[in-house]
Amino acid sequence: MSSLPNSLKNISLFLERLPGIGEKTANRLAFFLLNLPEEDLKEFSENVVSLKSKTKLCKDCFNFTEKEVCEICDNNERDRSIICVVETVLDLLSFEQGRIYNGIYHVLHGKIDPLNRVGPEDIKIRELLERVNRLTGSRVNELKEVVLATNPDMEGEATAVYIKNKLKTITDNGLRITRLAYGLPMGANLEYADYMTLKKAIEGRNQF
Amino acid sequence: MSSLPNSLKNISLFLERLPGIGEKTANRLAFFLLNLPEEDLKEFSENVVSLKSKTKLCKDCFNFTEKEVCEICDNNERDRSIICVVETVLDLLSFEQGRIYNGIYHVLHGKIDPLNRVGPEDIKIRELLERVNRLTGSRVNELKEVVLATNPDMEGEATAVYIKNKLKTITDNGLRITRLAYGLPMGANLEYADYMTLKKAIEGRNQF
Repeated sequence: MSSLPNSLKNISLFLERLPGIGEKTANRLAFFLLNLPEEDLKEFSENVVSLKSKTKLCKDCFNFTEKEVCEICDNNERDRSIICVVETVLDLLSFEQGRIYNGIYHVLHGKIDPLNRVGPEDIKIRELLERVNRLTGSRVNELKEVVLATNPDMEGEATAVYIKNKLKTITDNGLRITRLAYGLPMGANLEYADYMTLKKAIEGRNQF
Repeated sequence: MSSLPNSLKNISLFLERLPGIGEKTANRLAFFLLNLPEEDLKEFSENVVSLKSKTKLCKDCFNFTEKEVCEICDNNERDRSIICVVETVLDLLSFEQGRIYNGIYHVLHGKIDPLNRVGPEDIKIRELLERVNRLTGSRVNELKEVVLATNPDMEGEATAVYIKNKLKTITDNGLRITRLAYGLPMGANLEYADYMTLKKAIEGRNQF
């Protein structure tokens, strides 16, 4: 590293701070940048500088947006009767890439994780409850279902359970609260499936 | 992707052009940038913009540098009797990280690769031959050895053979031309070693 000039070293050190990027990868990326056209680097720099000031959270669902409300909440063709609650915008993007869901979202920006000192008040749970309360309380209530799509790990489960209990205290039984299905992923090999997944798969077996 | 605002999408699309970074990783990195302090992003942008104008190639060895001559060539404590010829600056950094070599380098910036239309004239071979010629021809010749440290793959081998033959035509027998040792990597398991490596290991066996 000491044999790199500062121009490259500074960029490499910055890239090393990004998740999943070690020293060798950071160097490789910095060298790659060196070979890109000057104007591309200029444009990228400008985008990086303005990133934080331009990017806001949607006031309804907390997806990223440059406006008040994100593209999904602003889209009249989306089904407003169902809210899918996800941990991160990356999870939202996974649903969107598959075009498998036409409802709207609520992004928690985290999960309840006591070991890392993340409590319910640190993520967008209060905002979700207020939003559901507002929607179900209005005279033109469209909301029928909340899908808790947090990850199937310990913290994600705990977050889902916490939200379910809170939702039950503020809504009558008219609101359906659901959770994503668990089981074998498509293309999986039973031989290599883990015990918990198999357990969920057998418990949740369906008529064929 | 369509549900990301432009501020994030532009950065993500740029990052996707970097080697080894796919769409999901690019999104993850862009989101991570969003959480960094404004001043860090500003500094990074400035470094990116000035990268190409600041970074040059060392006039002797073609390592990256901000000056005329790189830190290694400029260092009087380095052994000038031996030149290690590597394909890329990343290879040079691997040697430097280990502090296992105190000579100087010559960076080819590529390897002879006919399938990708890279010929001997496209990498810094001519410059190496001129450099060796100049050094061995001078009255105070210090150069004793050239280590051909190209990678042990087909193109790297071909490049080493090509350079060896060229060096032999321009120097008398006073110059030692060597190649890195091949064999089992440290910590390797014979059971999983590939056939070619085992072949090299048995051929190159040493008195014990």
